[in-house]
Amino acid sequence: MTSRSPDAVAQQGGLREQANAEALERLWAAEPVLVDVRPAIEVVPGLTPATVLTSGAPLSWEEYFGGQRSGVIGGALFEGLAQDAEEADERIRTGRIRVATCHEHGCIGSLAGIYTASMPVFVVENAKGGNRAFCNLFEGPSPARLNYGVYNEAVRESLGFIAEVVGPVLGEAVRAAGGVPLRPIVRRALHMGDELHSRNTAATLLFTRELFPALLDLAAEGGDDVRRTLEYLSSSDYFFLRLSMASSKATADAAHGVEGSSIVSAMTFNCRNFSIRVSGLGDTWLEAPMPTMEPKLFDGYTKEDVEYMGGESVINETVGLGGFAQAAAFPLQEYQGGSAERMVETNLEMYEITAGEHPEFKIPFFGFRGVPSGIDAYRVVETGITPAMDIGVAGRGGGQIGAGTLRAPLACFEQAVDEHRRRYP
Amino acid sequence: MTSRSPDAVAQQGGLREQANAEALERLWAAEPVLVDVRPAIEVVPGLTPATVLTSGAPLSWEEYFGGQRSGVIGGALFEGLAQDAEEADERIRTGRIRVATCHEHGCIGSLAGIYTASMPVFVVENAKGGNRAFCNLFEGPSPARLNYGVYNEAVRESLGFIAEVVGPVLGEAVRAAGGVPLRPIVRRALHMGDELHSRNTAATLLFTRELFPALLDLAAEGGDDVRRTLEYLSSSDYFFLRLSMASSKATADAAHGVEGSSIVSAMTFNCRNFSIRVSGLGDTWLEAPMPTMEPKLFDGYTKEDVEYMGGESVINETVGLGGFAQAAAFPLQEYQGGSAERMVETNLEMYEITAGEHPEFKIPFFGFRGVPSGIDAYRVVETGITPAMDIGVAGRGGGQIGAGTLRAPLACFEQAVDEHRRRYP
Repeated sequence: MTSRSPDAVAQQGGLREQANAEALERLWAAEPVLVDVRPAIEVVPGLTPATVLTSGAPLSWEEYFGGQRSGVIGGALFEGLAQDAEEADERIRTGRIRVATCHEHGCIGSLAGIYTASMPVFVVENAKGGNRAFCNLFEGPSPARLNYGVYNEAVRESLGFIAEVVGPVLGEAVRAAGGVPLRPIVRRALHMGDELHSRNTAATLLFTRELFPALLDLAAEGGDDVRRTLEYLSSSDYFFLRLSMASSKATADAAHGVEGSSIVSAMTFNCRNFSIRVSGLGDTWLEAPMPTMEPKLFDGYTKEDVEYMGGESVINETVGLGGFAQAAAFPLQEYQGGSAERMVETNLEMYEITAGEHPEFKIPFFGFRGVPSGIDAYRVVETGITPAMDIGVAGRGGGQIGAGTLRAPLACFEQAVDEHRRRYP
Repeated sequence: MTSRSPDAVAQQGGLREQANAEALERLWAAEPVLVDVRPAIEVVPGLTPATVLTSGAPLSWEEYFGGQRSGVIGGALFEGLAQDAEEADERIRTGRIRVATCHEHGCIGSLAGIYTASMPVFVVENAKGGNRAFCNLFEGPSPARLNYGVYNEAVRESLGFIAEVVGPVLGEAVRAAGGVPLRPIVRRALHMGDELHSRNTAATLLFTRELFPALLDLAAEGGDDVRRTLEYLSSSDYFFLRLSMASSKATADAAHGVEGSSIVSAMTFNCRNFSIRVSGLGDTWLEAPMPTMEPKLFDGYTKEDVEYMGGESVINETVGLGGFAQAAAFPLQEYQGGSAERMVETNLEMYEITAGEHPEFKIPFFGFRGVPSGIDAYRVVETGITPAMDIGVAGRGGGQIGAGTLRAPLACFEQAVDEHRRRYP
């Protein structure tokens, strides 16, 4: 297969192809830059002190269950919006605490995806389009985390440390550095064993190196906080995941809203459904029941323990990373199972459902072929091949219990094509 | 092929197999730790203020030519042992300046491999055997460097900066950190796109992160030197090569001197010959004429410009890295040519000539199979497959002009087998 440029895509035919070429052009031109780290309330549009954000297409409060529900309640408790779970539940039902979705507020949620006012968020700006995206910070290596539906004293302490120490230090360093461009880090990390979803080891190191000079200056002013922030950065190979998510969100948003385009601009989970959004179909979410998965579980867990609790990190797949760049990350076999051969096959399949090959994000094993990028809902339906996604797996009792590769359900792409045909006859 | 443990090797048969199992055991048990950075004169055994070390098996001064000869003269000038090239040449001929080889002094040379008394060296100690190895520091990204046979004002300045700033800062940081174990860095870097010879990008980052807390403390005491050292570390993806070389030298030396073993314990170039040393054959170098190579040259150069000027970085191949771990480093295609398929084939061939698979250094693409490790001279001769080596390519006028993969000449392995049969009938 030869590389398909936006021009080549446009020349293939009708209005849809031209719209897709425009969407691809925007997707590939995006230049996400980390410009700040601030408490969510200061920067996230429309957030209020009594809002809790969570992953996925909107649900009524009654529909949330399991880890996603306990995550929302945990967020309310962390923010001091209620004294206990019962009170939080009552205040949510009566509207004194507002539950809303991440995507509505430019945010992108990891698993349950809980955001509250005081949590620090990465502020990522697309230097090419001016649009902004936000993501909160990795909680640390413990499998019990608020984003996996757990809230207890240890989680509270860890969130407190991030709000009081890590966020302010990183914010100061990022501002002192004049911002950190993320696209070059993603580009290099793809040559260093990362696919930027379930593996972010190299990207975390590359990002840390970008901040070193600013951290040195901060340390010279004294401050144990800089050392503690550095320890946090050094112990968290997944730190960069939240930055790749914010980066991909800013990138995918740039490609959203192109009249006539059938390019997927977001994929997301809540605890009940998988949903996609399409560039030319406005803010409609096309939903389908959960797909099945073949997870690799941590010792002591079985498939019975697996529970969906939402998740929006598949925004990375939406732009061509994660499951679309598995052949750049063979070490992932250890974490999520499978084999190198299977990773290569899966990755090659993704070229069948995408509109093009990224001009800058490349896979060394494929002779530096660009990652398959820009999922076309029509191609998914025509081929029956659905997007492959590298995900963390949550357990019924909350917490992470494994990882794996998941295939998106075909039904939402079929709905997207039907809706697209209806709108653009 | 199944993994061959030392025990399995020993059970295969006679005395040679048992000796090889012993050599493998030592090779795999080595735990190289960077314990200090000091001027060579303070730590390298047998060095004198008027010694210049260079790569490869010994030659008489008349036999050195081209870049290796001008490198030795450049070293003498840098050290202030002569006023100009003519005087340096005269003093070498009359013995007032002593030219010796790196391996004789526990050192390991990059290309021409020039060491003089005042140059800082990494001091790497094998925590399991107590033996030490030394390597001097990467000169920086310019293609014109003393190790590539060039000496001029810019090279002098760069060597001065390393001696006066980088060496002392790193030494202080390494001592404050209580040493830096190198084996875990090599292990992780193999999962991040490095083969530790022609690609050391991840290892350099991982090493820098290990030192960062100590550098923060040094910076707090003030000091522009820490910042300048950090800039040097951040701009040099090849920085770690000298550490992988010292690490591999300490490892290979541990496997040297096992009575009856046919395992190769060193491979080296001077400007005239390729030579190997074998564990059970004492300090004899088995020499053969230069092999031919298929280099990827920088723009503007042709094969006519290629010149051998020595090199000992193939100590990395000797322990199972570099050309023996190409399938861990697909991004190398860009630098040294070839294709992912060819890298896989070459890497698989290396399993045919090695006595075992490393228990800890693993290749993700091969399902975490251990790197082929412990070259057996008998297997090389039996199969006709010779070691593949990832190397930098020097040009006639000095300086680096490209990179490529090179096959060792069969003749020196044939000599090794003849000599082994003679000694151990």
